Amino acid sequence: MAGNSIGKAFVVTSFGESHGKQVGVVVDGCPAGLGFSEADVQTDLDRRIPQKPNIVSARREKDIPQISSGIFNGFTTGAPICITVENKEIRSSDYEAIRNLPRPSHADYTARMKYGGFNDYRGGGRFSGRVTVTIIMAGALAKKLLSRLGVTVLAYTKSIDKIKMSKQMSWEEINNHRYESAVRCPDLELGEQMETAIADAAEAGNSLGGTVECLALNVPSGVGEPLMDALDADLAKAIFTVPAVKGVAFGAGFALTELRGSEANDPFRMKDGKVAAASNLAGGILGGISSGMPITMQVAIKPTPSISKEQHTVDLSKMKDATIKVGGRHDPCVVPKAVPAIEAAVAITIADHMMRAGIIPPVLKGP
Amino acid sequence: MAGNSIGKAFVVTSFGESHGKQVGVVVDGCPAGLGFSEADVQTDLDRRIPQKPNIVSARREKDIPQISSGIFNGFTTGAPICITVENKEIRSSDYEAIRNLPRPSHADYTARMKYGGFNDYRGGGRFSGRVTVTIIMAGALAKKLLSRLGVTVLAYTKSIDKIKMSKQMSWEEINNHRYESAVRCPDLELGEQMETAIADAAEAGNSLGGTVECLALNVPSGVGEPLMDALDADLAKAIFTVPAVKGVAFGAGFALTELRGSEANDPFRMKDGKVAAASNLAGGILGGISSGMPITMQVAIKPTPSISKEQHTVDLSKMKDATIKVGGRHDPCVVPKAVPAIEAAVAITIADHMMRAGIIPPVLKGP
Amino acid sequence: MAGNSIGKAFVVTSFGESHGKQVGVVVDGCPAGLGFSEADVQTDLDRRIPQKPNIVSARREKDIPQISSGIFNGFTTGAPICITVENKEIRSSDYEAIRNLPRPSHADYTARMKYGGFNDYRGGGRFSGRVTVTIIMAGALAKKLLSRLGVTVLAYTKSIDKIKMSKQMSWEEINNHRYESAVRCPDLELGEQMETAIADAAEAGNSLGGTVECLALNVPSGVGEPLMDALDADLAKAIFTVPAVKGVAFGAGFALTELRGSEANDPFRMKDGKVAAASNLAGGILGGISSGMPITMQVAIKPTPSISKEQHTVDLSKMKDATIKVGGRHDPCVVPKAVPAIEAAVAITIADHMMRAGIIPPVLKGP
Amino acid sequence: MAGNSIGKAFVVTSFGESHGKQVGVVVDGCPAGLGFSEADVQTDLDRRIPQKPNIVSARREKDIPQISSGIFNGFTTGAPICITVENKEIRSSDYEAIRNLPRPSHADYTARMKYGGFNDYRGGGRFSGRVTVTIIMAGALAKKLLSRLGVTVLAYTKSIDKIKMSKQMSWEEINNHRYESAVRCPDLELGEQMETAIADAAEAGNSLGGTVECLALNVPSGVGEPLMDALDADLAKAIFTVPAVKGVAFGAGFALTELRGSEANDPFRMKDGKVAAASNLAGGILGGISSGMPITMQVAIKPTPSISKEQHTVDLSKMKDATIKVGGRHDPCVVPKAVPAIEAAVAITIADHMMRAGIIPPVLKGP
Repeated sequence: MAGNSIGKAFVVTSFGESHGKQVGVVVDGCPAGLGFSEADVQTDLDRRIPQKPNIVSARREKDIPQISSGIFNGFTTGAPICITVENKEIRSSDYEAIRNLPRPSHADYTARMKYGGFNDYRGGGRFSGRVTVTIIMAGALAKKLLSRLGVTVLAYTKSIDKIKMSKQMSWEEINNHRYESAVRCPDLELGEQMETAIADAAEAGNSLGGTVECLALNVPSGVGEPLMDALDADLAKAIFTVPAVKGVAFGAGFALTELRGSEANDPFRMKDGKVAAASNLAGGILGGISSGMPITMQVAIKPTPSISKEQHTVDLSKMKDATIKVGGRHDPCVVPKAVPAIEAAVAITIADHMMRAGIIPPVLKGP
Repeated sequence: MAGNSIGKAFVVTSFGESHGKQVGVVVDGCPAGLGFSEADVQTDLDRRIPQKPNIVSARREKDIPQISSGIFNGFTTGAPICITVENKEIRSSDYEAIRNLPRPSHADYTARMKYGGFNDYRGGGRFSGRVTVTIIMAGALAKKLLSRLGVTVLAYTKSIDKIKMSKQMSWEEINNHRYESAVRCPDLELGEQMETAIADAAEAGNSLGGTVECLALNVPSGVGEPLMDALDADLAKAIFTVPAVKGVAFGAGFALTELRGSEANDPFRMKDGKVAAASNLAGGILGGISSGMPITMQVAIKPTPSISKEQHTVDLSKMKDATIKVGGRHDPCVVPKAVPAIEAAVAITIADHMMRAGIIPPVLKGP
Repeated sequence: MAGNSIGKAFVVTSFGESHGKQVGVVVDGCPAGLGFSEADVQTDLDRRIPQKPNIVSARREKDIPQISSGIFNGFTTGAPICITVENKEIRSSDYEAIRNLPRPSHADYTARMKYGGFNDYRGGGRFSGRVTVTIIMAGALAKKLLSRLGVTVLAYTKSIDKIKMSKQMSWEEINNHRYESAVRCPDLELGEQMETAIADAAEAGNSLGGTVECLALNVPSGVGEPLMDALDADLAKAIFTVPAVKGVAFGAGFALTELRGSEANDPFRMKDGKVAAASNLAGGILGGISSGMPITMQVAIKPTPSISKEQHTVDLSKMKDATIKVGGRHDPCVVPKAVPAIEAAVAITIADHMMRAGIIPPVLKGP
Repeated sequence: MAGNSIGKAFVVTSFGESHGKQVGVVVDGCPAGLGFSEADVQTDLDRRIPQKPNIVSARREKDIPQISSGIFNGFTTGAPICITVENKEIRSSDYEAIRNLPRPSHADYTARMKYGGFNDYRGGGRFSGRVTVTIIMAGALAKKLLSRLGVTVLAYTKSIDKIKMSKQMSWEEINNHRYESAVRCPDLELGEQMETAIADAAEAGNSLGGTVECLALNVPSGVGEPLMDALDADLAKAIFTVPAVKGVAFGAGFALTELRGSEANDPFRMKDGKVAAASNLAGGILGGISSGMPITMQVAIKPTPSISKEQHTVDLSKMKDATIKVGGRHDPCVVPKAVPAIEAAVAITIADHMMRAGIIPPVLKGP
């Protein structure tokens, strides 16, 4: 059954495989009157690929987006917007040898089970990290839309392996510095340590995981549709569509489970004539509805399953035990690439919910 | 906009408020031919309320389910199934006094912002833990359906505050013992410690949180619709609809972020002529599709926000700072009540996805 | 698979069978702040049953609606609204005899094929005209909502058999007189002829069909989501959910196929400083979007399939030819009962689309 | 809000405008294992444009489809399938002159109202008949899928203006001859009369309408999800997405309103050991579920609104009365082009419902 669309008012449909002709996305429901062009997409696509050969896969093609519908005279028209990127630098032969050897903890096996062997297995096909390009392109549109309402969405690397950022930084500092780091950690010194750790793991034929924090700032209160379409429920769903995500938490997350109510609760206080919370351990969402405080999310990313170390697997053509050393080009750590994808997933969901809440109208007026 | 339904093939729509006439659920899409009656629902409703006055709220009404459609001669007909429970023991006066004093970290404030003050605030209204009754009733149906296919869903308390279960138990042991414990921890000795901790916190006018683990056993491989309707994405969404959930993780979850690929990967091995994984740190889902291994989920539950200790808040009628001591009947820890709700949310999602994958047919044949 | 909900922003889910405990509806997404009570529903339920024994079935129970959620202090809260009516006057024994004899052109046969014999066949079960009660109840809410924006939806009987209304009447006249007629024809004289025709057909053990016209007045321009959720597409879908409907047309409908463009086009003209159309053969919708002109629909209703005349059928228990005389209580003409159901289906769809177009906000302010 | 997708299991999302870079469609949910290529699409695209300059617009570009995802080694993979066609032969300048002069009974006016003037008005933009290319491409896939199950969908021209086909022809004859006629009428002699009538109307600066009949053969019984997703309701919705459709009826349609029950009912009879109906005035659907008889639909198409005769309109830039003579290239009758579009819309809906009914599995096995 279908399952490649997300959202109810701002609906994103993704298509394309790693080694097909192109990957793309159709966004249906974007308000008319938003200035938008390929340049807006290019920025985020460029952010996907750190220009450091030691921490990302050798596949570092420049992705050039093309918009083929829904924009007229530089503005969105209200019609569906299709954005695509061609796939280049494809070396499918890398994959033929391991067709019957499913990589441990990769989707090779489950995809084959689900699709009866008809799935495009080249480069992971529909299960490649490459599909995050489609999320990022839709996210670029969502972020442009949100910026019209003063909402900012911002993700960055919080930890790689056991190296964790503890430095307190304002969101402006985070925003200014995160992309200066190849690993997308705004604490640049720590970022260099992370980079070294990734390079070392790669050298050893291994891989690392980490965590990403995402912030959504200036989301007004009242966004979210309880019970089933609670804002946190839909944000979690969207974030889990990013490959390699294994956990999502809001505010203080799992740490809240060891606090008392008196410690975990965020007291309300008047501030400049408005209601505010004196702390934000809840992460900006109460009862599935935004409170007006920053929405904060923690995301766990597993280490890349494709490693060159020898691993146990099975040979599906012979149904017997086997070993595999994954060759080809693989990121030793997907955390840096996950940063813009998570940011995009969050932006898409908030745009969708702000439309559903009637806060973003179907036609934008004025500049 | 609407937001009280979940699922695409097995669709659950919830309605009702804490202090309204009734709470209920409509399940649309359940296959015809499944034996089902109020007794199936009663079991799970009874499990919601531990019979220990010290750890749950004084509201311990016996919930009697009524099925008013979709069942004929003891079997599902294929038509929508409506199940309701009356609300009794309502003491709305408890809430009048605090109408303008939003409880810190509760939905009082956000609901008021979203619905312009028209929301039913009595007992938390639509945001009360009482709405989990509707999820549990739909879950009872989903679990009966899954049991026809040999699938078992099973949740239990893993930790309360800092008291964490470390004992290894088989799923049968977990299943047999968890409801012997008032806190739903199958390690009964540890469960008593948890119970004491909750009672102590209540005594101090405070509250506790904890974690729940949920297992789904015997889900065949191939269930899940990537990219957007990935099985883990939809499970996370469903679990986040349970009030007080602040984090969801699969398999080893956040701990995976500190492992190398060689440690985190689950090697495939032949076992009894079938493909299996030698470990299950991935938690039974790869690329958004079930692998055939047990699906395992970790859920973080925050401490109950309603506590009798004095807290800072604001008076919304005067727009000035105030304090609140929450009276009325409140659970000092909602983890035990969350256990059957999470189990239900997971069962609903797996039933939906097994229908979507064509594994559960629209009409069940045979016994 | 599920299929008992309609709408995307204002979502209506129907449940219940003819001879079950109750029939009901859950409306999810209705804006908060709308004054609404059982009395609003009662009016439309009463209109469903003409108090004339010769033209409707002997089952003329007074339907008393109960609202069990979503209303607080007389206003909608933004939470789902559940409305139910108990089934009374059930004589299921009437149906046992014909269980294996599917009524020609009735759903007896197709329901059995679809649900493997598990469907509740008593009184037609889920396929009874009785389910229109659920549409009518949701429609009462939609109409109340639309009236806040000055929109009126209005259906009436245009023809019974070959007796067709040709008198030109203003919509106010139609509105004032249609329910004075047992057949819901505002031309009261003609209505009496229709009534006689129905009574004559009933006397002969036969049944009649007819057409219903529905008008939606004051719908602003810009309502409708092309391409797939065009306003006319969604209106047609909603109308076809009313049992016995076999055709839907907009404006001049099938007659347009015999006109030239120069005759069929509605010229635009300025009127009181606004753009208007000098005629309305298009029926108020162009390109799937409302034009601001009245939306007009023609609906074909087939003659009731349940007739007491002997008919050919098959005996499904013996798989051989048989005959049937349908006993029990059946309407000799369902057109009068279809009038409020079609009106409701149209109102539901327009309310949904006006919310989707951002014209109806999620919270209604002021009186 | 979004509105460019249709279907629940086999989901079709359309994008593109008349004068944009391309028009395209994404189909999500198509089973894996179906042989499919551009050639399957080409056949239907070619059928869209009769090669007769006198009855269709001068825009007779050859549309070459490109599939960019979801196909691997000649078979569907289960991933979303994107199919596009480039727009060529664009003469946008034709439209600049009439930008402020909405064509009577065309979407120019309503689109402008809805999208605040941001819509791409060139060539009708998203409201052009050109978007039927997207429906036809998705329909080609649906028809290939249906053919695997022996289901055939077949549309043809039944009338143009007052020239109506009365000749009885078998569906094989219809299928064999309809595309020999430039107007797609399988009665070739009558087709020539229709052709002359269209050419005459064009000569006079006018346009004609007509009716299309569509048949779906060998659809098994049990397809359709009552109440709201009744098969006829969803078919009607899909057909109304084709521009210029003003009416849809099933079986004998509006003529049923003048028959008695005894005349309108289709008696069941045993035939070759199976249940069949002796007649098919119901058009193959009872209670929203297919009966196993051919599904038959009548569709009303209005005359093309764009005519070169002078018409009254308004000048929206000056808000005063004006006249318009529509220049550019317009079909004097869109019925021939509507034939494959209606066929596609019906095929898409039946494929979707056969998947929902569990009759078409998610993976096709065998040849």
